[in-house]
Amino acid sequence: MADDFFFPGLRNPGNTNNPAASLVTAANVEMFPGVNTLGVSIARIDYAPGGLNPPHTHPRATEIIFVLEGTLEVGFITTDNKLFVKTITKGNVFVFPRGLVHFQQNRGYGPAAVVAAFNSQLQGTQVIAMALFGAKPPVSTDILAKAFMTGNSAVDAIKAKFAPK
Amino acid sequence: MADDFFFPGLRNPGNTNNPAASLVTAANVEMFPGVNTLGVSIARIDYAPGGLNPPHTHPRATEIIFVLEGTLEVGFITTDNKLFVKTITKGNVFVFPRGLVHFQQNRGYGPAAVVAAFNSQLQGTQVIAMALFGAKPPVSTDILAKAFMTGNSAVDAIKAKFAPK
Amino acid sequence: MADDFFFPGLRNPGNTNNPAASLVTAANVEMFPGVNTLGVSIARIDYAPGGLNPPHTHPRATEIIFVLEGTLEVGFITTDNKLFVKTITKGNVFVFPRGLVHFQQNRGYGPAAVVAAFNSQLQGTQVIAMALFGAKPPVSTDILAKAFMTGNSAVDAIKAKFAPK
Amino acid sequence: MADDFFFPGLRNPGNTNNPAASLVTAANVEMFPGVNTLGVSIARIDYAPGGLNPPHTHPRATEIIFVLEGTLEVGFITTDNKLFVKTITKGNVFVFPRGLVHFQQNRGYGPAAVVAAFNSQLQGTQVIAMALFGAKPPVSTDILAKAFMTGNSAVDAIKAKFAPK
Amino acid sequence: MADDFFFPGLRNPGNTNNPAASLVTAANVEMFPGVNTLGVSIARIDYAPGGLNPPHTHPRATEIIFVLEGTLEVGFITTDNKLFVKTITKGNVFVFPRGLVHFQQNRGYGPAAVVAAFNSQLQGTQVIAMALFGAKPPVSTDILAKAFMTGNSAVDAIKAKFAPK
Amino acid sequence: MADDFFFPGLRNPGNTNNPAASLVTAANVEMFPGVNTLGVSIARIDYAPGGLNPPHTHPRATEIIFVLEGTLEVGFITTDNKLFVKTITKGNVFVFPRGLVHFQQNRGYGPAAVVAAFNSQLQGTQVIAMALFGAKPPVSTDILAKAFMTGNSAVDAIKAKFAPK
Repeated sequence: MADDFFFPGLRNPGNTNNPAASLVTAANVEMFPGVNTLGVSIARIDYAPGGLNPPHTHPRATEIIFVLEGTLEVGFITTDNKLFVKTITKGNVFVFPRGLVHFQQNRGYGPAAVVAAFNSQLQGTQVIAMALFGAKPPVSTDILAKAFMTGNSAVDAIKAKFAPK
Repeated sequence: MADDFFFPGLRNPGNTNNPAASLVTAANVEMFPGVNTLGVSIARIDYAPGGLNPPHTHPRATEIIFVLEGTLEVGFITTDNKLFVKTITKGNVFVFPRGLVHFQQNRGYGPAAVVAAFNSQLQGTQVIAMALFGAKPPVSTDILAKAFMTGNSAVDAIKAKFAPK
Repeated sequence: MADDFFFPGLRNPGNTNNPAASLVTAANVEMFPGVNTLGVSIARIDYAPGGLNPPHTHPRATEIIFVLEGTLEVGFITTDNKLFVKTITKGNVFVFPRGLVHFQQNRGYGPAAVVAAFNSQLQGTQVIAMALFGAKPPVSTDILAKAFMTGNSAVDAIKAKFAPK
Repeated sequence: MADDFFFPGLRNPGNTNNPAASLVTAANVEMFPGVNTLGVSIARIDYAPGGLNPPHTHPRATEIIFVLEGTLEVGFITTDNKLFVKTITKGNVFVFPRGLVHFQQNRGYGPAAVVAAFNSQLQGTQVIAMALFGAKPPVSTDILAKAFMTGNSAVDAIKAKFAPK
Repeated sequence: MADDFFFPGLRNPGNTNNPAASLVTAANVEMFPGVNTLGVSIARIDYAPGGLNPPHTHPRATEIIFVLEGTLEVGFITTDNKLFVKTITKGNVFVFPRGLVHFQQNRGYGPAAVVAAFNSQLQGTQVIAMALFGAKPPVSTDILAKAFMTGNSAVDAIKAKFAPK
Repeated sequence: MADDFFFPGLRNPGNTNNPAASLVTAANVEMFPGVNTLGVSIARIDYAPGGLNPPHTHPRATEIIFVLEGTLEVGFITTDNKLFVKTITKGNVFVFPRGLVHFQQNRGYGPAAVVAAFNSQLQGTQVIAMALFGAKPPVSTDILAKAFMTGNSAVDAIKAKFAPK
């Protein structure tokens, strides 16, 4: 029936009262079964002023966004470590190629929001800092210290922030 | 550079002062080369009150829409001739499976608009009535009369409406 | 066993004693399970003189036909509303690109038949006039009248022809 | 134009006056550019009585055949060395899964012919005996003798048959 | 858990005490379920001196090999019957395109081994001589004699070698 | 010719005399054109004792590795932040699903090496720490501080390590 292909859950802004001051509300096959086998999914992302959707990847999809309101700085990093960054506003479109690290931040004075579409029914999301510093079991401090060319204590300090309260 | 992945052309509502009282503004690979090889594209569709995006297909993509404003009746028809139809409003999502005939109509009192995303860099669009009754050279009247189980004069009357002015 | 990959059901011409004077006999995964996962299916189409396989689309496949007998006018319409039409006879091949509206009509004095192959185990078929004017529940008359730039009574007259007897 | 999507070259039976007493006439993207990007191609195969389309593979396509006339023994071999073989006649359909060794032989008293469709614009064909015993430069006799568990002289005798005259 | 993505079964050289003097030890989805949906699989192949991995195809995958030790002659045959052959040694890489007949033979004085990776979770393997001369039920001697342009007795002699002992 | 499908450049261990004490030597389509269109590529990775192939992703490929020598701790992080980690040794196989952050570290007393195969001719590699802290132009310190829940000075300290000398 028609309701199978309908999803009302993106109607309201997400609650951005969290440390990142942003929230992704997803409509992929897990909560919107109608997209099963159709090769698409969608989400809305809300941002309080300064709110950040922190650097992350989607292992199985390209993402294309349309700004609903506000002013955002958006960027992605290429495989040769070039940052492509742009300030975009209401009605603008930006595309993040499959699998690359990207982020968005609200650089305006009021709330911001985007609609994000994916060419996968289940794009997957890996938030980089959480994956590396908040994994269960933890990634060894030694590996992170080497990777970020810093000391063990600096790594442990970051890990502490990602530990469950 | 970042501008290659940015498209500003969907910022403003399209001009709906046309017979359909609706307008599709597309951002596919033809006008937004940044999506080349990325498997996505996007569009916005604006509708005056009563405006109709008439029955059409996308030969190469599933479409997922998010309502920016207004109240729309949206529907698609399955391969066993079932109509799936739904009235949707701001913030709602609906998905039209690959290749099926679908449409949207503004059923509210003010303007309506949606963002539409596709899982193809070039979804293609075939507007059914225009394709059948406005093609160059024309589809023979005999074929259309048989297909629609009507008379030649009825077909020719419709064809006349689709002829270039 | 070998019989799983064998299908005898296209041996005899289909019965064309129907309003369209044509019949599609399909061998896709629903009746020929052997093509499951193999990405192909096949059909034969028979046409009495004047018989029409009316304008339709296959949402998930390109179609390639080989004429078994007779003389057919075949055509498809591109996404920019160009009609590509050709008269073909026994032994000729024609290809209908994925998702585009196409048709065939017997323009000879005797029966005609084609073999049609698809690059999908389940191509799907949407017969345009039936989908629009015979759907259950019906597409609203208002939408069809606008789409075909005609009056409600003209739409209702066509709808009446597609209603179950 | 429409002629781009039309191919007349399968109209006439191929000349089977050759050692195999069979001939494949192909309509793939090399001689029928209209199928470019469309993911299909087609061929006709003609067989004199006893004529054999010898064991071969298509590296990039599943093949589905429809018998135009005659009686054929057709078969393919699975990856666990089971032969699936069937005698088929006019109007029958058989499918050869992607990449598996298969063959057809005319087992009737008159000519036989099939239409073969592929889910690739360029299916590729590797005729096993020719590939192994007629390659340029030759596959070493030692390898073939070991592979076929026979002697060098037996291999060289077969190689001689495949040498250009 | 991590063990799902781990496979220890390629650790030891395979037993090459068999007629081919070679052994393929596979790690595809049948014995290594962790690659399910991931589109890859792997194998190791061991060869005694003179050992041959006889001409075969993988219907659903390209293969890329890395030589662990030894000296091998490797080759494949194109669809226009050209042999591409090369002698490779420890640390060398060679690629066998999807679906083409290929082989490897140990041309050194000691054992040889390669790692082979495939872009499919289940590449499939069809060993040509076994498929043609050892199938159950057997491919008819007549067909093989014609295909290899040899006599029935020569075919039967080869078939006898592939019969179960 | 055969040399097009041959790549000798992985023969020798890479020079691990660098800060990571590891080196990836790739054989993808950029340096090994023979894999063009074939959907595979390969690499070898060498590690001095303690050497780390730091957390990274491949945007377009699953990776499967085979250990040539040594003892490695390998791991990847799922999209729900679970670490899957395993100690593997010579002859072991491990698979890293498409697009997920993963790493390997030599935990033995001598050199270690793996062969890594990918189901893409150009897998792409994004080294997370370098991408985030060494991009040109730089990702803003503010964004990184928020993402890693740390202070600007901690971010700038890491950035300084990734600056070109």
